[in-house]
Amino acid sequence: MRILGVDPGLAIVGYGLIEEDRRRIRPVRYGCIRTEAEQPVAERLEKIYQDVCGLLDDLRPDCLAVEELFFNRNVTTAFSVGQARGVILLAAVQRRIPVYEYTPLQVKQGVVGYGRADKQQVQEMVQRLLALSQPIRPDDAADALAVALCHAFRLPLLRHVGVWRG
Amino acid sequence: MRILGVDPGLAIVGYGLIEEDRRRIRPVRYGCIRTEAEQPVAERLEKIYQDVCGLLDDLRPDCLAVEELFFNRNVTTAFSVGQARGVILLAAVQRRIPVYEYTPLQVKQGVVGYGRADKQQVQEMVQRLLALSQPIRPDDAADALAVALCHAFRLPLLRHVGVWRG
Repeated sequence: MRILGVDPGLAIVGYGLIEEDRRRIRPVRYGCIRTEAEQPVAERLEKIYQDVCGLLDDLRPDCLAVEELFFNRNVTTAFSVGQARGVILLAAVQRRIPVYEYTPLQVKQGVVGYGRADKQQVQEMVQRLLALSQPIRPDDAADALAVALCHAFRLPLLRHVGVWRG
Repeated sequence: MRILGVDPGLAIVGYGLIEEDRRRIRPVRYGCIRTEAEQPVAERLEKIYQDVCGLLDDLRPDCLAVEELFFNRNVTTAFSVGQARGVILLAAVQRRIPVYEYTPLQVKQGVVGYGRADKQQVQEMVQRLLALSQPIRPDDAADALAVALCHAFRLPLLRHVGVWRG
């Protein structure tokens, strides 16, 4: 099972592909897509869409994992992140790649085992779980890997209850 | 000049095409795209994208006019509307159709001449300006026509200062 985690944003989209074979999980590729603040929003969205399409065709994930909503941010940020998320979900659904959504709480509980973990704790745990020798940069890639791991840890349950579509 | 106004939303996207020839403005077509609340978000976004692509190919607008941001709404709404707006802007930029953005204040000032006009006043003015005998339904289509009109009224200025790309 190849899981692509995505952390959407208009300026930067983090991504991280992990592969799990029921015995172990390994990182395959992670990084980010960046867009220029000076460019019109529509063109930034087009770059994100094209780059995500490229990643999906290149990495061939079985499913996508993204954060469902976010909290503690303002309306302008929500609007801006929402736009980026829209074109990312579109790229996935056009390829019939199922999308799984997790709340920030579920990601923290899934990865650290503690829903009030801070960003730093999540990132260190992601690094440890994937046996990476270096901290993951940028943060957005680490966040993307975190949501991918969160989904990987849910797979036994999803397989058990039979709702797994991946 | 054919201007397509769009009022984005995940459940309902209003649209309205107007045509202006420097002497008069007439409504060409208006309506809305609806998606089912029970469907996964990714599939609702795909429907919006496909229907907007269909409208753009069918109506061949010279430009798109949308509201830039909105206020007085919560983060969840902003996020949801943002996603729909993302795939709409993508459909436009893929066809090299320029997108113009206006704040709600600009729309009210442009259409009613008064920035604190309420929704009802805006809709009545849109109906009058387009010489329609019936109130415009749904509201989302009226809002889309309002932003299209706002852009139409700015055209003399945009043409004069030479930033007009339409």
